[in-house]
Amino acid sequence: MNTEIIAVGTELLMGETQDTNSSWLGQRLPEFGLELKFVTIVGDDLTRLTETLDRAWRRSDVVIAMGGLGPTLDDMTRDGIAHMLGEQITTDPDLKVWLEDNFARRNVNPMPQQNYRQAGIIPSAVAIRNAMGTAPSWWIEKGDKILITLPGPPRELTNMWTTEIAPRLKERLPGQKIMARTFKTIGLSEAAVDEMVRDVYDVPGMDFGVYAKQDGIYLRGIAKADTEAEALTTLLRAETMVRDALGDYIWGTDEEYPPERVGDLLREKGYTLAVLESCTGGMIGAALTEIPGSSEYFKGGAITYTDDMKAQAGVPQETLDAHGAVSEETARAMADAARRTYDADCGISVTGVAGPGDQDGVKAGTVFIGVSTPGSASVARHEFPSRRPLVRNRAVTAALLQLIRALQSE
Amino acid sequence: MNTEIIAVGTELLMGETQDTNSSWLGQRLPEFGLELKFVTIVGDDLTRLTETLDRAWRRSDVVIAMGGLGPTLDDMTRDGIAHMLGEQITTDPDLKVWLEDNFARRNVNPMPQQNYRQAGIIPSAVAIRNAMGTAPSWWIEKGDKILITLPGPPRELTNMWTTEIAPRLKERLPGQKIMARTFKTIGLSEAAVDEMVRDVYDVPGMDFGVYAKQDGIYLRGIAKADTEAEALTTLLRAETMVRDALGDYIWGTDEEYPPERVGDLLREKGYTLAVLESCTGGMIGAALTEIPGSSEYFKGGAITYTDDMKAQAGVPQETLDAHGAVSEETARAMADAARRTYDADCGISVTGVAGPGDQDGVKAGTVFIGVSTPGSASVARHEFPSRRPLVRNRAVTAALLQLIRALQSE
Repeated sequence: MNTEIIAVGTELLMGETQDTNSSWLGQRLPEFGLELKFVTIVGDDLTRLTETLDRAWRRSDVVIAMGGLGPTLDDMTRDGIAHMLGEQITTDPDLKVWLEDNFARRNVNPMPQQNYRQAGIIPSAVAIRNAMGTAPSWWIEKGDKILITLPGPPRELTNMWTTEIAPRLKERLPGQKIMARTFKTIGLSEAAVDEMVRDVYDVPGMDFGVYAKQDGIYLRGIAKADTEAEALTTLLRAETMVRDALGDYIWGTDEEYPPERVGDLLREKGYTLAVLESCTGGMIGAALTEIPGSSEYFKGGAITYTDDMKAQAGVPQETLDAHGAVSEETARAMADAARRTYDADCGISVTGVAGPGDQDGVKAGTVFIGVSTPGSASVARHEFPSRRPLVRNRAVTAALLQLIRALQSE
Repeated sequence: MNTEIIAVGTELLMGETQDTNSSWLGQRLPEFGLELKFVTIVGDDLTRLTETLDRAWRRSDVVIAMGGLGPTLDDMTRDGIAHMLGEQITTDPDLKVWLEDNFARRNVNPMPQQNYRQAGIIPSAVAIRNAMGTAPSWWIEKGDKILITLPGPPRELTNMWTTEIAPRLKERLPGQKIMARTFKTIGLSEAAVDEMVRDVYDVPGMDFGVYAKQDGIYLRGIAKADTEAEALTTLLRAETMVRDALGDYIWGTDEEYPPERVGDLLREKGYTLAVLESCTGGMIGAALTEIPGSSEYFKGGAITYTDDMKAQAGVPQETLDAHGAVSEETARAMADAARRTYDADCGISVTGVAGPGDQDGVKAGTVFIGVSTPGSASVARHEFPSRRPLVRNRAVTAALLQLIRALQSE
């Protein structure tokens, strides 16, 4: 079904706020059989907004309007939809009570007059309460078409979508049910993944795609069937075959990402981790500590941006002198030092040239990553494209994946 | 003048790539007197693309089409524009030679056949060569309208805009010339900035705005005049007055950001810096080392995610025992330890509760930041809204600004 997103807000056009919602939703629509054809960003202007809504409503089956649901007069999404459908906004008594309770709970008494706008509704809309804010969503069905409003703040939008909109869409949309699973692999080329799972391609009702991503090669399987139960059965059957074929090359699925998977593996094995970071300057620590509760397994480490700092953190001066800071030997010694100096079970080290320029004869983009665990030690040499932010980001992902692989094969 | 952006690419609709170009451009259009009214993302589909271009061309004065300029058949921006204007694409002999040279320089011989598509042009377009890639821009003027194509990769787009498009627009667009400057302050409230610069508000030809941002309060001055020289004179006059009024509360202007300013100040004073990071887990080091050449002044430091690590990095055990890890005293001792242990002139420390939960009776969002320089020592206590990513990001900015302020008033 043709789908269209309208993001409302002058701040989005001024570049003050980046619209990240469209991209988040764009990834989630295919599982409902919804094909996103257009995203339009429009400012807080009733004429242009109504015109945009009207065109979307005429040419698409599903329209999602995001933002512009706040209490102030420049929040016009409600008015735009009412104009477009030729309906009147009235106050919904239930929403009014819900809103007043909402403010009372936060000890804001009385509720500001402006917020009563958020209790407004049109006859063809059903209101869906917002568990994280004061802007309810509207769900409108007319003929075969659906129009949904979503609150603009990403936290509210993702929660509303996951808990309220996605289940309703699943129930409401006719035709094939779609379930997808992405297997994230590491240590294999695109061609190798393709080769290894070839047998699974024949499972009826399944479609597969192989994609190269920053954190390895992804295999995406999509099951299509008339009922959700049937799609799930097909997907699970395919999953078993995929896991048999790829084994420990799979490091995660769907929305898992490397710092999370590292945390799960360390917890599972009861290991702790310390890092010694040179060219990533603290980015690995930053990524690991994004996860709440990471203090259970992450001890910390050192940002050893100079040779002196490396020596101080336990890297033998002889190794630095003999091989230089950016070398396989130093990376190995750094990973060992991370474990020893900080009394951790596992160590990660990164040393390289982030660029833009080369350094001491080593090409920008060259990065050595060391991983040391109770069961193994490894150093990998990478040649990343020599753009500084890219080198550093890739190095972080590569380091975490190297540790994941080491822990998975222990 | 009404302006409209069209971003082309199915990958943008699938959420595989986030469109960051629109937001970047959105911030830059006002200085040319261009008002962005719509951003539309459309996939690689000739019918929908042509329809979108046609609507934009009818309703807007300036249309910017981004992406879809690559060599493959699913790159359709050139074809869409040709369709829309009813013109034929032919090969531009100069572009052809330029492209062939481009590939020869990279030792790709012969040039892949597909790339000849990038030498295509229509009669009403002027080609602008791309210094960073193989996709030239088109500049089209018809009547009072302008249509510009820009390459999709952000690095190519920003370079093309800055070096080629912006100067042409400046020359081409009639009416008032606009020059803007943003002064970034720290240590003052919005109201205080407003109060202190009140006299400057009276400078004729200037408009001012005060905004609260994550890295302090911004004062934005916009000079409007009939000629660029006149606008510049007005702006410089206002700048002198603003600097007199705000003095060292200003930490930067325009696109300067805190890690850059820290680097400039440390270089200027010949100081080095080390960090001791707890709840930010390496993010300050990561931010500082984004800047190429940061090894001149940044020595590194420690990610002290546990009490043991703090003690090992030189924080007295008595301080930790007496006051706890998240305390003013520990933050002060950590900043001192950063200087002493790593033999640096300046030290930054961060210790706090990133959340989501409280910890040892300390509320999530509470962060202590210590800064120690040869001339001063300070500890600031912050209570950030208790969302983990927000707490950590705010703490990084606050720490860098605290150091900037200390160094500026030395």
